[in-house]
Amino acid sequence: MDLTEYKTSSTLVYDGKLMKAWSDEVRLPNGKTAVREYIKHPGAVIMLPLFANGDTILVKQFRYPVGKTFFELPAGKLDGEEPLEQAVQRELAEETGWSGTRLTRLAEFYPCIGYSNEKMWLYLVEELLEASAQTDHDEFLEIHRMPFGRAVAMAHGGEIDDMKTVAALFFGERFLKSKT
Amino acid sequence: MDLTEYKTSSTLVYDGKLMKAWSDEVRLPNGKTAVREYIKHPGAVIMLPLFANGDTILVKQFRYPVGKTFFELPAGKLDGEEPLEQAVQRELAEETGWSGTRLTRLAEFYPCIGYSNEKMWLYLVEELLEASAQTDHDEFLEIHRMPFGRAVAMAHGGEIDDMKTVAALFFGERFLKSKT
Repeated sequence: MDLTEYKTSSTLVYDGKLMKAWSDEVRLPNGKTAVREYIKHPGAVIMLPLFANGDTILVKQFRYPVGKTFFELPAGKLDGEEPLEQAVQRELAEETGWSGTRLTRLAEFYPCIGYSNEKMWLYLVEELLEASAQTDHDEFLEIHRMPFGRAVAMAHGGEIDDMKTVAALFFGERFLKSKT
Repeated sequence: MDLTEYKTSSTLVYDGKLMKAWSDEVRLPNGKTAVREYIKHPGAVIMLPLFANGDTILVKQFRYPVGKTFFELPAGKLDGEEPLEQAVQRELAEETGWSGTRLTRLAEFYPCIGYSNEKMWLYLVEELLEASAQTDHDEFLEIHRMPFGRAVAMAHGGEIDDMKTVAALFFGERFLKSKT
């Protein structure tokens, strides 16, 4: 069955500072029309830093849309046509003060397919070196270095409940097991 | 460190058919102000159906914001003040034609904390019975019944790349291992 929905019109309905929302009219598989409202997003990278001693880094941030703080792996939006590995280094340094010399792409996935085109790429980052941290001026976060296994346990136990971080830790767990 | 951001004003900037976007002004921990744009979402349930023979059900759907089809576990938005377990039964029947008599809540998480307040609850659904399917009129999907282990392998291999489905399958895998 061809499930494709075809665009018949597209309107930018909110052109905000960071967020852009669109409302499209589409033709459904049965020939009828429907409205699809969604966010256009530049895409993002999420990093699983791994030190030689087995530690990782979580950042704790207040997320205003939800109204609470979250433990998250470092992550950030792509900046224009920036290559993925450059975004990984930039965002990791901005958020944690570390950069990595060995990057391994572990997965790619879509966090919010109902109403956003956001795509996310997950990188394992190893052989970490101290970088000069240049934190975004309106980004406030705490850095928590801890054993990778503890972060995985926090995801299983619900203490980590940011979905991208949960998925990334589970991918990392599987990948590291496959290497031993 | 208190990372909280406090609302100083809030504006509904897009009041769409299904999507509502807000732009708030907030006071940051350093006393400065910033803008936060986000979607208000009613919350959602995601279901991991598990038959006695070890099969699960994935649905294949075209997701217009991304422009491709995805294999997903059945999921859907909460309807007003509807109890979670009622939403589980309603959405599972609507999407798959099955209902379950044994529900176990496995996890709760937030898929999109950067720009949405959406919260998602994951239920394992067992002891499945055929229900009368009442598909949403503009929802077109294919139902794929398959062994749970195959779905997990598809998530690890990247063939399943909807993040909520990946996270839910990994939670399910861990839970089922813990019982054996």
